[in-house]
Amino acid sequence: MSASHRHPHKERHFAASDTVRDVVLGMADGLTVPFALAAGLSAANVASRVVVVAGVAEIAAGAIAMGLGGYLAARGDIDHYHSERSREFREIRELQREEEREIVDIFKTYGLDRAACEPILTHFRKDHEAWVDFMMRFELGLETPDPRRALRSAVTIGGAYIVGGLVPLAPYMLIAQMKPALLISIICTGIALALFGAAKSHFTGVSVWRSALQTVLIGGLASATAFLLAHWIGGGSP
Amino acid sequence: MSASHRHPHKERHFAASDTVRDVVLGMADGLTVPFALAAGLSAANVASRVVVVAGVAEIAAGAIAMGLGGYLAARGDIDHYHSERSREFREIRELQREEEREIVDIFKTYGLDRAACEPILTHFRKDHEAWVDFMMRFELGLETPDPRRALRSAVTIGGAYIVGGLVPLAPYMLIAQMKPALLISIICTGIALALFGAAKSHFTGVSVWRSALQTVLIGGLASATAFLLAHWIGGGSP
Repeated sequence: MSASHRHPHKERHFAASDTVRDVVLGMADGLTVPFALAAGLSAANVASRVVVVAGVAEIAAGAIAMGLGGYLAARGDIDHYHSERSREFREIRELQREEEREIVDIFKTYGLDRAACEPILTHFRKDHEAWVDFMMRFELGLETPDPRRALRSAVTIGGAYIVGGLVPLAPYMLIAQMKPALLISIICTGIALALFGAAKSHFTGVSVWRSALQTVLIGGLASATAFLLAHWIGGGSP
Repeated sequence: MSASHRHPHKERHFAASDTVRDVVLGMADGLTVPFALAAGLSAANVASRVVVVAGVAEIAAGAIAMGLGGYLAARGDIDHYHSERSREFREIRELQREEEREIVDIFKTYGLDRAACEPILTHFRKDHEAWVDFMMRFELGLETPDPRRALRSAVTIGGAYIVGGLVPLAPYMLIAQMKPALLISIICTGIALALFGAAKSHFTGVSVWRSALQTVLIGGLASATAFLLAHWIGGGSP
């Protein structure tokens, strides 16, 4: 959940920061799941109050599960990075020939022979710190993690989930009758999903209309499924 | 959601496959959110039937949102990879000096000078395919995506969410009285969360007990928050 492509060298190719990714992650589910839950409950002939209680419980649980889950995953990545780093240092000290062969193997993938790697090997024999940095990124594909990111990521994902979830739920909070509340919730959430999909396209490179359509379709499919299942189980007459 | 660390060269350092990651992703939320939702609703004095309807609606919506969201993210990664690849080819053809400087810049980070890169540059001038492969991985940090992964990932995440969600919900399906259903749901889900956390530790490198404790704590915190909020809004007497 926390993993992402980070580019330490140059970012010209890809515009999305980690924060944008976290907002997208939280809001996509926040707009969709509470919306579908409310639509599902509306099929089971419950009071508007029950939808609000269920919706608030879902939003709180979802925000905590996604936020804390993201936090622990990011902490885990940091621990993992440091234990791999210690391991690389040890291996370079104890199994230097092995590690040199690994560098040659990496470059062999790109058609380069041992002779082409020789200047690099010569340098790394004198600078183990640089060697380890190189192996972390080029052998293991691991970036230096930002220790402050775990908490920020948790708050961003959880916050985006809450903001997203309040859109479909607000109509049920304000309107006591189920039918008009459901109708207004569908309209508001449909618009919000389309805008969110369109905004997201700016970072993913997918075309605006396609992205908006995809987001609305996921929300619609989730809600329709929840509605039909709830109708079938609950035996309500919508 | 779909991004992950993949190591094309050697996997000895890290045991988790993409499938394991997808199962963990889906099951963590699947065990937690429907559990907390049911606990929350139990605070609002609703019938056991309403908990089942809400739970099934939530599981369906969550599985679709996470599964389809994961699918689209993976498809997006594939499109992104191919558009970046075309761009690199173009840049190497049209801005060769710029791209050579970028290689030198990458190696400069590890204390290497231009002379050390010269054999690599000489080779890449003759083999643009290898040059592009190198830039994709070492400049942009992008791995070749597996086109079959998007669908498999969606089904795995969604399926794990459903399996996880049925654990806390089953007691409400089988027992009509709310209090014993809630109690059995708490016991079953507590055990499932602990086992899940312990199993997960095998792949994350976190210690077994710490991982089990963390997972149980997230589930407990999410449920307690949902319960208290629902109690406060719903005005029920639990």
